[in-house]
Amino acid sequence: MNFSYELHELIDLLIPKKIIGHTSFPISHIGSLVETKQGGVSFLGNSKYRKEVEKSQASAILLPMELDLAPKENQCFLFFDNPSFALGKLCQDIERKCCPQPHGWHHPKAVIDATASIGQNVSIGPNVVVESNATIADNVIIMAGCYIGHSAKIGPNSVLHPSVVVMDFCEIGSRVTLFSGVIIGSDGFGYETVDGVHEKIPQIGNVVIGDDVDIGANTTIDRARFSHTKIGKGTKIDNLVQIGHNVTIGEGCLIIAQTGISGSTTIGNHVIIGGQVGIAGHINIPDGVWIGGKSSVVSYKSKMGKILRGNPAMSIGDANHFYVLRPKIPNLFDRVSKLEKSLSELLPRSELEQI
Amino acid sequence: MNFSYELHELIDLLIPKKIIGHTSFPISHIGSLVETKQGGVSFLGNSKYRKEVEKSQASAILLPMELDLAPKENQCFLFFDNPSFALGKLCQDIERKCCPQPHGWHHPKAVIDATASIGQNVSIGPNVVVESNATIADNVIIMAGCYIGHSAKIGPNSVLHPSVVVMDFCEIGSRVTLFSGVIIGSDGFGYETVDGVHEKIPQIGNVVIGDDVDIGANTTIDRARFSHTKIGKGTKIDNLVQIGHNVTIGEGCLIIAQTGISGSTTIGNHVIIGGQVGIAGHINIPDGVWIGGKSSVVSYKSKMGKILRGNPAMSIGDANHFYVLRPKIPNLFDRVSKLEKSLSELLPRSELEQI
Amino acid sequence: MNFSYELHELIDLLIPKKIIGHTSFPISHIGSLVETKQGGVSFLGNSKYRKEVEKSQASAILLPMELDLAPKENQCFLFFDNPSFALGKLCQDIERKCCPQPHGWHHPKAVIDATASIGQNVSIGPNVVVESNATIADNVIIMAGCYIGHSAKIGPNSVLHPSVVVMDFCEIGSRVTLFSGVIIGSDGFGYETVDGVHEKIPQIGNVVIGDDVDIGANTTIDRARFSHTKIGKGTKIDNLVQIGHNVTIGEGCLIIAQTGISGSTTIGNHVIIGGQVGIAGHINIPDGVWIGGKSSVVSYKSKMGKILRGNPAMSIGDANHFYVLRPKIPNLFDRVSKLEKSLSELLPRSELEQI
Repeated sequence: MNFSYELHELIDLLIPKKIIGHTSFPISHIGSLVETKQGGVSFLGNSKYRKEVEKSQASAILLPMELDLAPKENQCFLFFDNPSFALGKLCQDIERKCCPQPHGWHHPKAVIDATASIGQNVSIGPNVVVESNATIADNVIIMAGCYIGHSAKIGPNSVLHPSVVVMDFCEIGSRVTLFSGVIIGSDGFGYETVDGVHEKIPQIGNVVIGDDVDIGANTTIDRARFSHTKIGKGTKIDNLVQIGHNVTIGEGCLIIAQTGISGSTTIGNHVIIGGQVGIAGHINIPDGVWIGGKSSVVSYKSKMGKILRGNPAMSIGDANHFYVLRPKIPNLFDRVSKLEKSLSELLPRSELEQI
Repeated sequence: MNFSYELHELIDLLIPKKIIGHTSFPISHIGSLVETKQGGVSFLGNSKYRKEVEKSQASAILLPMELDLAPKENQCFLFFDNPSFALGKLCQDIERKCCPQPHGWHHPKAVIDATASIGQNVSIGPNVVVESNATIADNVIIMAGCYIGHSAKIGPNSVLHPSVVVMDFCEIGSRVTLFSGVIIGSDGFGYETVDGVHEKIPQIGNVVIGDDVDIGANTTIDRARFSHTKIGKGTKIDNLVQIGHNVTIGEGCLIIAQTGISGSTTIGNHVIIGGQVGIAGHINIPDGVWIGGKSSVVSYKSKMGKILRGNPAMSIGDANHFYVLRPKIPNLFDRVSKLEKSLSELLPRSELEQI
Repeated sequence: MNFSYELHELIDLLIPKKIIGHTSFPISHIGSLVETKQGGVSFLGNSKYRKEVEKSQASAILLPMELDLAPKENQCFLFFDNPSFALGKLCQDIERKCCPQPHGWHHPKAVIDATASIGQNVSIGPNVVVESNATIADNVIIMAGCYIGHSAKIGPNSVLHPSVVVMDFCEIGSRVTLFSGVIIGSDGFGYETVDGVHEKIPQIGNVVIGDDVDIGANTTIDRARFSHTKIGKGTKIDNLVQIGHNVTIGEGCLIIAQTGISGSTTIGNHVIIGGQVGIAGHINIPDGVWIGGKSSVVSYKSKMGKILRGNPAMSIGDANHFYVLRPKIPNLFDRVSKLEKSLSELLPRSELEQI
């Protein structure tokens, strides 16, 4: 994104607590301390990169108050209690300036059923399909090529990126972001096998997504057999995640990419699940549990503690202990062979002494 | 889904073998024994939940014949040989009533090539693209935004959910369901590396999908290098599965979410593959094998038996034995150290005795 | 794909070094030595299948010069220095003949912003959306239903299969192929947790994809927090892969299906990553490393060597050693128990002797 600030505009926006150095030049890019060049703005977010501040070519650097460093000539240091937070504010402003903001139009190539209810200031992009009796609340943005099924509901201020599918009867909360390729409410994987033939079990429930949820690109969340598959308020889900039918996920969880959660499992609040984790069906993961990347969880027992790792998962301590010992296992075999040899030499002699 | 039955309508539909209790009230929702409230219908599918029947607030409960329980006041018990089957019948009826059924229209915003052959009673949604020489058989439903490539064939009574892609020359059987985001017939991953440059190997085969196959959301099935990637009749595939080029999958298999099957592998009939399994290329998995979730299979040997687990996979017995012993491995190291210590104390003495 | 060659046309196209047998018949299909029937063409790509040449029913077979075999009656053997290369040439010709080639039209149902810059001989399919200030270079093919965001750039001769999404400001090189369902430039997964609430970190960087890159169906590549997520020239990525924000991937890499690479990790040149691999964030994988399927890499140390395997990954030697010993671990427990028993019998006696 190309942008252009005069440094004083940036100062007016971020209101630093302290300013050292030259303040009158234009700013046109943003990046890490290493990659930012003259004319750019950078920041120190983690004190371990402190040494990079002195080497940085950035013209303006956002720094923590406690840092005691002076800028080079033609450089400006801006000091904050929380430079990361200041940077976030700047990034939001850049985003707002650079990305075109839709303002409440319905594209003529959208296909909106006459029975659908569309709120105030809703933006609907080209090739969007909104089916019968769907409800789109105020200030929703639906980008190109999305599909909103029959009787689906999208809450206020939510954003659907291009090519999202929300199937019939599913309900999306307020301020939810669905990224491209997300499929909400496809059928759960349920079959009853009769004489070797897999008969489909109808999936007539829906998906209910709470407020302030984000769901990453190409993630799939299946509709319930009946009742609801539920994602709690403030939970953030990464790309290519699979969530099975009748799963309940609590509030404020983080679920990293390519994780799969099998049907009817319940995840508590503030659970953090690493990438490529697999969680079996019909189990409960309590509040506040952390699960390391690529783990599988087939059952949860309280003795596992709050941090799990491994396949199948153990307590983090047990898992790390095993991983440390694993490369020593070949040597353990050798040690046991040696013991056997020593003992076999020893034993007959001992036996002999018995006589 | 909101629906409304008078209980006598439900009785006419399901024809229970025995009825106990009050039969004249409306039914407006469906769910598990615990979550269903007054005015709802529930069922006992698994005898381990028997105790929940007595506590359930559901107004009508579908029960197995052998259950000897009496309903509360204002409650009705309906008895069946197979209450799950009765429930399925009810769910199908609800689905039919609640979901709008398309009846053979072609949406004016569909783009259908003049050379495509379209059967009787075919429903084609908005923004669907049907390319040249494609063949769509009778009673097919193609929902919004699907793409049907040049010379592709869709068999009778199949249903394509929104945003499915079927590439050129691929063939889909009868009564197949493709859920949203499915990609059939993308190129197989084949390159010949010449002097460090990966030269593409053309993929001019196709994908052939048998009758009664279901394929889950965002699953990808690659076209063959030549000839066919094949999915056998009655096989059901979950979401986000990857099936490589020239794979052959037999009949009646179940393949759970996020599993990947590498190129040119052959899977027999009635194989069940858990979630997040990885199967190497160019191997054979015989009929009736079950593979536990998150396993990897790099080769199959008959001594593994019919149930596999682990990474790489072993027989289920060996795998479970290993997983039971795994947390005891740190202790095993301690035990061996102790043995070494004891023996080292013992050995010099023994040696001494030799003198 | 149905095609039809007279054998002499095929000879004119491929120019074999030597021809033995009958050369005047039509060729209408292509396949492996086993599956090809009379009227078809096959090849010997790997000398281990040599015996299948004699049994093959194929009418024409492409063979290496060194093979000393005579064709059956009505069969023709065509000899080449590299029969695989000859076959590739034939397949390309079949592909060109059978697949309809778009020639520089813009479909009337495409939605192209007036400010977008569209090169010469660009094909844009139905329902494609090209947003403001996007740049599409010469000879690009964009198939049905793709979305090209604001200020995105597509380099010359690139091909986008149906339903690809390229978000705002992302840059695609020359001769790139993006397969169906690919999402380029969705937001990176970045949140700052304040009092249990996950506050979104704006993702204002982009994705930059080098020349000659292929990206498989339903793969997702996230935009950078700032600066770029980068895919190097000539790298080939399979289906359903996840690449996090600010990842840098070198040139000439191969990344197999369902692999995930976490944010800010750097992958060198000519790295080969098997299927379902997980790579942690903020690490470096040097040039030329090979990572076995289903491995996880949480850090890379040079002592691991160039070939890694396991979860977490070890050197291939250590991993294979562990996998060979793993089924013997139950027996190791037995051996240690036996040693303990023997020693306990021995020890008291020894102790006794001390007296």
